[in-house]
Amino acid sequence: MFEQTYDRLRESVERALKDLCQACPSPQPLRDAMAYSLLAGGKRIRPVMLLSACEAFGGSIQEAMPFACALEMIHSYSLIHDDMPEMDDDSLRRGKPTNHTVFGQGMALLAGDGLLSWAFETMLAQAQGSQQRWEAMRTLARAAGVTGMVSGQCRDLAQRPQDGEAELYRLCAEKTGGLLAGAASAGAALAGADAAEQERMWRYGIALGVSFQIQDDLLDILGDPALLGKQTGMDKARGKMTYPALLGIDRARQVMEEQTRLALELLGERAPFLSELTRRLLQRDH
Amino acid sequence: MFEQTYDRLRESVERALKDLCQACPSPQPLRDAMAYSLLAGGKRIRPVMLLSACEAFGGSIQEAMPFACALEMIHSYSLIHDDMPEMDDDSLRRGKPTNHTVFGQGMALLAGDGLLSWAFETMLAQAQGSQQRWEAMRTLARAAGVTGMVSGQCRDLAQRPQDGEAELYRLCAEKTGGLLAGAASAGAALAGADAAEQERMWRYGIALGVSFQIQDDLLDILGDPALLGKQTGMDKARGKMTYPALLGIDRARQVMEEQTRLALELLGERAPFLSELTRRLLQRDH
Repeated sequence: MFEQTYDRLRESVERALKDLCQACPSPQPLRDAMAYSLLAGGKRIRPVMLLSACEAFGGSIQEAMPFACALEMIHSYSLIHDDMPEMDDDSLRRGKPTNHTVFGQGMALLAGDGLLSWAFETMLAQAQGSQQRWEAMRTLARAAGVTGMVSGQCRDLAQRPQDGEAELYRLCAEKTGGLLAGAASAGAALAGADAAEQERMWRYGIALGVSFQIQDDLLDILGDPALLGKQTGMDKARGKMTYPALLGIDRARQVMEEQTRLALELLGERAPFLSELTRRLLQRDH
Repeated sequence: MFEQTYDRLRESVERALKDLCQACPSPQPLRDAMAYSLLAGGKRIRPVMLLSACEAFGGSIQEAMPFACALEMIHSYSLIHDDMPEMDDDSLRRGKPTNHTVFGQGMALLAGDGLLSWAFETMLAQAQGSQQRWEAMRTLARAAGVTGMVSGQCRDLAQRPQDGEAELYRLCAEKTGGLLAGAASAGAALAGADAAEQERMWRYGIALGVSFQIQDDLLDILGDPALLGKQTGMDKARGKMTYPALLGIDRARQVMEEQTRLALELLGERAPFLSELTRRLLQRDH
């Protein structure tokens, strides 16, 4: 049941993204570079969450789809820029050469800029606005922006050894939580949920994001490289500040469990699919 | 009279940008890096155009100001990314060290990403949307995006020697015309102008952009480095395709004059300030 719903939502996102790429009127190298990363697969967690949050509040998938695709474009742009030599300097992502490795750094920079712009163009594709669309776009802009994901990236880049747990929490809440909070809250907004409900869904996404990030950091220490499809031990090699590095594995696991409990509590009975997704995301081994 | 209006509009933009930077809740290195470029002065042509187009169609400066500031943020992000080593690799802009020279390439990348996101956050700052705001934001997203400025940047980066005049026109229309078209058309949209009027203002901005770019390229050949505040002859040194390089100086000047005439014709009697601005921009010697 859960798997079927997940697959249905993921496949509908996959199709919509493919259609958008095929119809993209950009000059060829830009279109190719954007499509290369946008259609590189992955679990599509964020757009699936957005669609299912919209359904949980009684909204329609069709209305939410441009926003789900926009959110995946934003996620995809952040990965392209994050992989570049001036940031994490990665040459592989999900087993494929990273964008700048294939298209060159200049085009990768533009592909990221293009995907972020295209995200807003996609949300604004309809000639008629509505208060729900306005609020959903507002939420996604905040999630991606200078107090959300970009702020988290900045904290990550500017880490100092003396940073404590409060700064680490902000880093994870913004960098990983930002887009998840945006997904849950924008989905609710599109369905006409009120401000308090949207805020609750936002806080759910933040708690989930912090858990998710700690899980990621634990897998980097304890995970199986074959299952993960990537080298482990990278955070330590890069000297990255993480929950396990700062607090030890046991305490990190404890914070993760607290945040998961908080996330599930905030969801309540409203969205059984999201509750199950939350539980599964935090039991994953890859 | 013209100068007074220009100064009044420019100063109001300058004040609004300063207020936004002071209230910016981002972590310090990101806030500093964004403010460094956003408050680096310049003529503020695009936001002044947006405000004055809004006034010409009977709208209010106050309503248009967040959009004018957002447009300048978009312009500013494009300059930061354009100056980076993977693009034009410039170490000076308007006589000051470029963003990545001061803050490092990683932070400059994020400052650009941040300014583009912040632009949309600024347009979406009001909790209530309206059809005018929706249309203005739609226009600015198109102007900045994957068929607008980013597309033009891609054409610039991917230039080939066999490209002809049609490709060069598209490059200039998108790269330089995009944001000018966005300024004129979004200003009109905010004042409630109809679709035909918005389209006319869009085409005005494109024609102005092409003229403006040719003027820039002519100054790079014929201008006075002391007046311009930068080295000339850079396009030739970089092997850049320009109107003067492709068609010769006389024919380039002719195209510039044709496009200026077209721009003025599209404006008509509607916006005397913009007509005067257009004439002056294309008689500049720096």
